[in-house]
Amino acid sequence: METYTSPGEYRAALEARAALPAGFRAGRTSLTFRPRERSVENPYTMNLSLLLLDDPSPSFAGIFTRNAFPGHPVVIGRKRLSMPFTRGVLVNNKISNVCTSDGDRDAEQVLARLAEVAGGDYDDYFPASTGIIGWRLPVEEMLQAIPPLLASLKGDNLLEFASGIMTTDRFPKIRSAAVGEGRIVAAAKGAGMIEPNMATMLAFVLTDLEIKRDELQKALERVGSRTFNRISIDSDQSTSDTLLAMSSRKRRGVSPRQFEEALASVCAELVEDIVRNGEGTTHVIRVSVSGAPSEGMALGLAKAVLNSPLVKTAVFGNDPNVGRLVMAVGDHLGAQSFEVALSKVRIRLGDSVIFSEGVFRLDAATEERLAAYLKVGQFDPKKPYPEHDRTIDIIVDLAAGQARAQAIGSDLSYDYVRENADYRT
Amino acid sequence: METYTSPGEYRAALEARAALPAGFRAGRTSLTFRPRERSVENPYTMNLSLLLLDDPSPSFAGIFTRNAFPGHPVVIGRKRLSMPFTRGVLVNNKISNVCTSDGDRDAEQVLARLAEVAGGDYDDYFPASTGIIGWRLPVEEMLQAIPPLLASLKGDNLLEFASGIMTTDRFPKIRSAAVGEGRIVAAAKGAGMIEPNMATMLAFVLTDLEIKRDELQKALERVGSRTFNRISIDSDQSTSDTLLAMSSRKRRGVSPRQFEEALASVCAELVEDIVRNGEGTTHVIRVSVSGAPSEGMALGLAKAVLNSPLVKTAVFGNDPNVGRLVMAVGDHLGAQSFEVALSKVRIRLGDSVIFSEGVFRLDAATEERLAAYLKVGQFDPKKPYPEHDRTIDIIVDLAAGQARAQAIGSDLSYDYVRENADYRT
Repeated sequence: METYTSPGEYRAALEARAALPAGFRAGRTSLTFRPRERSVENPYTMNLSLLLLDDPSPSFAGIFTRNAFPGHPVVIGRKRLSMPFTRGVLVNNKISNVCTSDGDRDAEQVLARLAEVAGGDYDDYFPASTGIIGWRLPVEEMLQAIPPLLASLKGDNLLEFASGIMTTDRFPKIRSAAVGEGRIVAAAKGAGMIEPNMATMLAFVLTDLEIKRDELQKALERVGSRTFNRISIDSDQSTSDTLLAMSSRKRRGVSPRQFEEALASVCAELVEDIVRNGEGTTHVIRVSVSGAPSEGMALGLAKAVLNSPLVKTAVFGNDPNVGRLVMAVGDHLGAQSFEVALSKVRIRLGDSVIFSEGVFRLDAATEERLAAYLKVGQFDPKKPYPEHDRTIDIIVDLAAGQARAQAIGSDLSYDYVRENADYRT
Repeated sequence: METYTSPGEYRAALEARAALPAGFRAGRTSLTFRPRERSVENPYTMNLSLLLLDDPSPSFAGIFTRNAFPGHPVVIGRKRLSMPFTRGVLVNNKISNVCTSDGDRDAEQVLARLAEVAGGDYDDYFPASTGIIGWRLPVEEMLQAIPPLLASLKGDNLLEFASGIMTTDRFPKIRSAAVGEGRIVAAAKGAGMIEPNMATMLAFVLTDLEIKRDELQKALERVGSRTFNRISIDSDQSTSDTLLAMSSRKRRGVSPRQFEEALASVCAELVEDIVRNGEGTTHVIRVSVSGAPSEGMALGLAKAVLNSPLVKTAVFGNDPNVGRLVMAVGDHLGAQSFEVALSKVRIRLGDSVIFSEGVFRLDAATEERLAAYLKVGQFDPKKPYPEHDRTIDIIVDLAAGQARAQAIGSDLSYDYVRENADYRT
């Protein structure tokens, strides 16, 4: 990760990253409302954020949550994938529009108003929503906010948009790469509920490089499974996760391989940003499993370790409780009825081997070294820019095959509990 | 649950429950030691607790963790199940004796000393250990503690033993039932790491009723899968979970069915005690799933909801965030590729239907009622006796079959994080 010596320096780097590809404009506005479902003293604030293509484009692709109770924008978005072209995407935060009585109509009403002002039909636009599950959108207030939203559009950069889609995110997340004559720029939001299959994560990939729709869809699926599907903050996948990509086709394309490599690098960086920004994250934990009989097995084990609350709380406390780590490995292997040769398994925390030849490698000096390692890996709140740039490495070699996988996630802190004990206030 | 109006009244009830069946004695002592693996200012304290049969008995049974990295006492205990008889069980807390270089020998050395004083051979006794994973037992100090341990034995009740085996438990857990001419009495410890397959849970069932070994084993397995396997505090199963049963055969037996029913009721109560005593538990959550295509599916869904950190933190905060609840249900069903008819699913929180016919049933009045329900279900620390006696009910009807299952677990609180961020100090 890059580091920056001042907030100004970080901001400048973020703005440079956020420069829009040709053929896009982006903007945001905000509105206030009172939810129907809760009596509140002060009204809530919602951001509306818009990505608009200068010209309708047939080159777009999407991946959505596998949650069995998908949000209305997900249901609508899936249908949009068979439309001949798209004009853009409208995002609101604060309410995720899931399983409400008129959720489809609410979303489409807002898009219809957008189409009146910005051109085309309501179904030329993707809706995306993030926030509280189960509440209805404040449709009236959203309709009124469409004209100022259009007025906010600018062609220079994505920073306002990326800030507008945030919920409990600490900072806007944008990554980009120059490719051939064009660019790939991506923005995401996601803090709680981050798991495989992209839980309450919204991500938008923009490019001006010419690319066919099916190529874009395939590249997005392959890259998504290697990036967004490898992160885990709290093991829940949300009802609203969405990853959309669209091309303005304003620049000459590159080879499919070159495109996919650039897309993969942008998405990998974006995914790290999301984890580093997890609710209450004080340590980023990376689990690498090698020597597994299959990649699925390796990934399953890596995620199981990442999702163990006992491992997560120990790391939070800078407590090198490697017993819990081995317990979590053994728990997952046992539950899978996987017979491992204990004497061959090697487990490391950072550079220190803590388990080999069937036994723990622990003494007072190792314990002190491990505790120091965890402390150095801790987020420093006095230096909140850029993203938290440190990582705790847990490395497991099962010596039972050639497959490997890596997953990243976060520890479990007081702040995680605080943020989630009443997120909705 | 019973409630008591004073600590004295609760203590008296516990003592009555804890009366030993005929043919057993129990006791405990404590020792201090300095671990090899960590430099500490003050020595640690360990309890040694002993259950002794007056006469060796061939009627005993056991179930152990499925963790792939089992503790040395588990490895030894599995072998003990094929021995002709047993004389008792020796339990230590503080260190769980898992994957250490001489873990088997350490445990057997201590049992050999016990046999010298109490009779028989070292392999007439079961060892059981709970506590820090990966550290070695303080064998010298344990050897010296055997004579005072024997001197502490009493034939009246199990309370000292049940207190001695605790780690971070808030209170000793004992349940019993009178059956025919005899009794079944069981004690358990378990606070963190409670999941299916009995994570860091030690439980001991004693009876004076005559019963054949294979009948006891079968009853224990059936009852275990319906009780200990239905609880979930933090979704980790430990390296040391052990459920042992032994009979002194001092009283005439009852029918297998009568025995199993009594055993099931004792174990069900004990399991509730364990959950109510979870580290930092402020709400006990019971998830009931009905209308599932199979019992395994119903149980899997119930546990998935119980293990969702977002559901757990919302309940902790008395925040009726039913969106997260539905999200967790949908997450599990989606991950299982289970196609549910959304319009038929009904979800309740307590008495309130919060989801039916595919949509949330929410308004400001419902929200207030739900928040009040969660508050009433909260543990009152000013009334810590007996166990926390309140429960939050989450009820899911999938309308997709006839199978049902129930699981209980706990919320996720600041105290959970605090207890686990450095449990070892």
